Amino acid sequence: MTDKLSNDPEFGDEVNTEKILNKIEKQKPYQAYLDAPLGLRNHWYAALFGEDLDEGKCQGETILGERILFKRAGGTVYAIADRCPHRGVAFSARPECYTENTVTCWFHGFTFDVRDGALVQIVTEPESKLIGKLKHKTYPVEEINGLVFVFIGDLQPTPPIEEDLQPKFLEEGMVFHKAACSKVKGNWRIAAENGFDAAHIYGHRNAGMFQATDIPVPLSTFPSSKDEVKVMDGEKGPWGINKADDTNIWSAEIEGVMIKAPNAEPDAPPDYEITVGVFLPGALQVNHFPAPHLVHLEWFTPIDEDHHKYFIVHASKATTEDEIEKFHSECEEIFAPAVWQEPGSQTEPTGDGPNWGFNNFDAFGREQSHHAYHYEDFWHRERLFRPDYIIVQWRMLVSKRMRGRQEWGDWAPKRDI
Amino acid sequence: MTDKLSNDPEFGDEVNTEKILNKIEKQKPYQAYLDAPLGLRNHWYAALFGEDLDEGKCQGETILGERILFKRAGGTVYAIADRCPHRGVAFSARPECYTENTVTCWFHGFTFDVRDGALVQIVTEPESKLIGKLKHKTYPVEEINGLVFVFIGDLQPTPPIEEDLQPKFLEEGMVFHKAACSKVKGNWRIAAENGFDAAHIYGHRNAGMFQATDIPVPLSTFPSSKDEVKVMDGEKGPWGINKADDTNIWSAEIEGVMIKAPNAEPDAPPDYEITVGVFLPGALQVNHFPAPHLVHLEWFTPIDEDHHKYFIVHASKATTEDEIEKFHSECEEIFAPAVWQEPGSQTEPTGDGPNWGFNNFDAFGREQSHHAYHYEDFWHRERLFRPDYIIVQWRMLVSKRMRGRQEWGDWAPKRDI
Amino acid sequence: MTDKLSNDPEFGDEVNTEKILNKIEKQKPYQAYLDAPLGLRNHWYAALFGEDLDEGKCQGETILGERILFKRAGGTVYAIADRCPHRGVAFSARPECYTENTVTCWFHGFTFDVRDGALVQIVTEPESKLIGKLKHKTYPVEEINGLVFVFIGDLQPTPPIEEDLQPKFLEEGMVFHKAACSKVKGNWRIAAENGFDAAHIYGHRNAGMFQATDIPVPLSTFPSSKDEVKVMDGEKGPWGINKADDTNIWSAEIEGVMIKAPNAEPDAPPDYEITVGVFLPGALQVNHFPAPHLVHLEWFTPIDEDHHKYFIVHASKATTEDEIEKFHSECEEIFAPAVWQEPGSQTEPTGDGPNWGFNNFDAFGREQSHHAYHYEDFWHRERLFRPDYIIVQWRMLVSKRMRGRQEWGDWAPKRDI
Repeated sequence: MTDKLSNDPEFGDEVNTEKILNKIEKQKPYQAYLDAPLGLRNHWYAALFGEDLDEGKCQGETILGERILFKRAGGTVYAIADRCPHRGVAFSARPECYTENTVTCWFHGFTFDVRDGALVQIVTEPESKLIGKLKHKTYPVEEINGLVFVFIGDLQPTPPIEEDLQPKFLEEGMVFHKAACSKVKGNWRIAAENGFDAAHIYGHRNAGMFQATDIPVPLSTFPSSKDEVKVMDGEKGPWGINKADDTNIWSAEIEGVMIKAPNAEPDAPPDYEITVGVFLPGALQVNHFPAPHLVHLEWFTPIDEDHHKYFIVHASKATTEDEIEKFHSECEEIFAPAVWQEPGSQTEPTGDGPNWGFNNFDAFGREQSHHAYHYEDFWHRERLFRPDYIIVQWRMLVSKRMRGRQEWGDWAPKRDI
Repeated sequence: MTDKLSNDPEFGDEVNTEKILNKIEKQKPYQAYLDAPLGLRNHWYAALFGEDLDEGKCQGETILGERILFKRAGGTVYAIADRCPHRGVAFSARPECYTENTVTCWFHGFTFDVRDGALVQIVTEPESKLIGKLKHKTYPVEEINGLVFVFIGDLQPTPPIEEDLQPKFLEEGMVFHKAACSKVKGNWRIAAENGFDAAHIYGHRNAGMFQATDIPVPLSTFPSSKDEVKVMDGEKGPWGINKADDTNIWSAEIEGVMIKAPNAEPDAPPDYEITVGVFLPGALQVNHFPAPHLVHLEWFTPIDEDHHKYFIVHASKATTEDEIEKFHSECEEIFAPAVWQEPGSQTEPTGDGPNWGFNNFDAFGREQSHHAYHYEDFWHRERLFRPDYIIVQWRMLVSKRMRGRQEWGDWAPKRDI
Repeated sequence: MTDKLSNDPEFGDEVNTEKILNKIEKQKPYQAYLDAPLGLRNHWYAALFGEDLDEGKCQGETILGERILFKRAGGTVYAIADRCPHRGVAFSARPECYTENTVTCWFHGFTFDVRDGALVQIVTEPESKLIGKLKHKTYPVEEINGLVFVFIGDLQPTPPIEEDLQPKFLEEGMVFHKAACSKVKGNWRIAAENGFDAAHIYGHRNAGMFQATDIPVPLSTFPSSKDEVKVMDGEKGPWGINKADDTNIWSAEIEGVMIKAPNAEPDAPPDYEITVGVFLPGALQVNHFPAPHLVHLEWFTPIDEDHHKYFIVHASKATTEDEIEKFHSECEEIFAPAVWQEPGSQTEPTGDGPNWGFNNFDAFGREQSHHAYHYEDFWHRERLFRPDYIIVQWRMLVSKRMRGRQEWGDWAPKRDI
């Protein structure tokens, strides 16, 4: 493996992740990342699950601060600004569709073709000179493997979506299962870092999910050498980081008390390696998780500076109908409920026990971190440690390859909502 | 009819409202209006219904950001700043009246004559030198036709209230019926424009109210010529705009689908004309609505930048006791519930069906517009169309005749509440 | 008694409190006080009741904007910043203690000795070079008479806590009883001034508590001469003001109506004098209250600019076991419920009747004042009167003796939470 970013001349031949981290943290060479609280402009984002949008139906979503209406017409999903150019109301507040390809504003009848944004009619003034002339903002959309993606930006031509997806999501022969889709408090960067965070497995150690799977669960796991960390930062995307872990912590001692991992260190390492990858503009890929035959995928789509939409998908190789059916029923019954439970019913202590989905704990952790990062300037006060080497590499990668940053402005509401 | 504003030399001889609108919108000659989010200073405002304030009782209201206490004493309503000059608490938080003409602060016993604001006693220090010297701010009040109005400003002498009222409200032989009084989200300008808005009748087309009345309901209605629009902008008020509509839209087509008005175009026009007027500082008058023999009146009183108090009153000519009684019972049973239902119980889709009052839909529309205007700078991004000609005239009229603008300052709390 | 502050040369020989007040209010010589909305730095603050923190348990509190974790270990209470230096989460959000003297962060296992802040282990990377090197912020703590105090600041050496306590709290032979501990809306200065406020007894006049005690209750009570006011402003603390009242108001007249105190003026003054004292950084001491044999103590600990934590304690001389037991049972049954009832169940008018604790009315008054002071700049608009002489002395005393002011910054979150 190679790590182009920490291989830059200034970092020399050092491979020890702790030493490199200390060097990087003095320079903080990722200012562009710190300056992008609202997300990265000119990238593709997961917006909703296709199965949640029936033919002819509309759904409004706020993504990177932009209000967007999604409509499925003739099987295809289209996206148009969810703010009537006339008086600013959201179409989605009271969706009105007279025909397959249009949405009509419920207030004064402005009617747009969702495919190209053309104003095709004003019900309240059919002779208006605006008709056929006014164009409303539309967004490029792709529906892939059950997820609807939208391009936020204005770059022409629109970059290919393949540059913004985890490689496993595009691998042939894979099948996918929706596990969760939820609005979570926390900046998108907190979310992406939390997903990729090597050592936070510690907080998951009592998760009920580990009763549903038999993968080994150490107290912590991280790469000690940069050779375990593969940074994909070439001219072409996808841009991401994959890491394997050569260090696993199975116990630690505090004042004479031994802390042990939930299950013992296996005599022989398993015959598969859990590798974790994070990808621009904010997506995760975990191989062999939550079970050896699965791939775990997540997306963190910025809603505003304080919230993100959190998507979780299970994936697996499967070709025959039997295999596919078995995969879906396994996800339905075992894995999806193990990773996410709709918040509200939890009675056990935070993050522990059968009422908590594995990733509900992550959402909890993000909300907790967000407070310090957002209100107490923790971007400049945090004290990182060796496992955070990969986090810092991620920040540098984003700073290097992001196509732009989203700003409050023409498209987005002001901050003080 | 004449329209002085769009008749100004710079607008030439053009009468086509679409052409005039386009010309105006390039100049936006109504900056004073845009600069008055908190309301117009030195005008009279509807504050409460007289029937809601019994003899000897107090009620606190916030109007244009000012906290004001209303008390009825000896039949007359008085208004005094609802903030004790001593320690800033609201008298109305725990009203205390030992005598007819006074209010006593519940905290330290400062006692003011509500008629002139004189500090007549301090219960906790009856020998204070402040007594007889300190004057608290009072407000001119008028109670007319069941509504209590208050003058917000400091202009001397106080301008006559007649300049700030809809003409029909002062017409002889009219009787009045309270329909509603509610706090609504949305800036007062959004509210006034929504009430006067010609084309938004489209959004009302499924309103349950139209089952209670048989007035014709097109998809839209607006003036095509400025000759249909009468602007009253003389030296003396009332200042307002009355418009008749020479254009009614009964159907429109989208991708081959015909959209039709809820009831068919009548063979002959009705023998009355629904005319709509808007008046400074923010009031509406609709003749022959919601039934041919009625007049519909509304007031939009700014509370703060984000809310207004919404008053709805029915009016009719009636002279004999029988006529008057019939009017009230008709309003009570049919019209008042048809225009407003206290929010909360609605189960039908937004704005439709018997659970929604006609004007509840307007409140919904204002809240939706407010978001874009307040947070997304829609005052500068909106894309107006022909029916909005009258809206723009209204903005120009206000800019021309407003006696001042309210600012956060001495009288009002700061913005960041 | 002497009053050093109003004896300063600039105030001359005047002893009339009204005249001195008028003179002071023109100068407002207490700018430092006005500039300290977040509290006084480098002072000791009441944080929690010791009985609410069992051995081995943790509790998070926000004090002057700083998030602090309290843990009892081996009987002693320790305080450490409740924000992991690694990723900023609060330990208290999911407390984790493997050993007596440590707290472990639930997110990545950073483990600190609560006694000195030393990083003693990182469960997820036991070989980290940070261990033994990183020091986390800890706070000096003292537990006295059942209350846990914490020092907020960085002054070295830490000033003695005795300088920040009411004298009666340290008097020998006293026993103490917890009455209440509650979060109240209102800036800490509003709270301290309200507690010390001479004339606000007026608002309490219908309090249910006066049925439980037979102390005389005038409409108001205040010192007319500065000789009744003793200002302790020497080089060494405690710094405070004690006042006796030579003026009691038993009745007042409004428009011919007589307002009378709840009970009549006693023929002879009682054989004890209710004296009230306020002390830096924000504590109250009322002698012979709420009953002649009791001392009433309060603390107002700033949480943030808009809230304070409110502690109420009863105290009495008691030496034998019988006396002590009698004191506690009397407090439990009569006095504690009379001064404070957990908000929510009140059905009577504000502040009146048996559902309201005596001090619940004070909390109500603070919230009401806070609005004007915080949002309407009442620090510069208030109109004080003679009984406020002592308030102004308090402001001057604080300005003179405060050891610093707390600012949003390194330790505290930004304002816009």
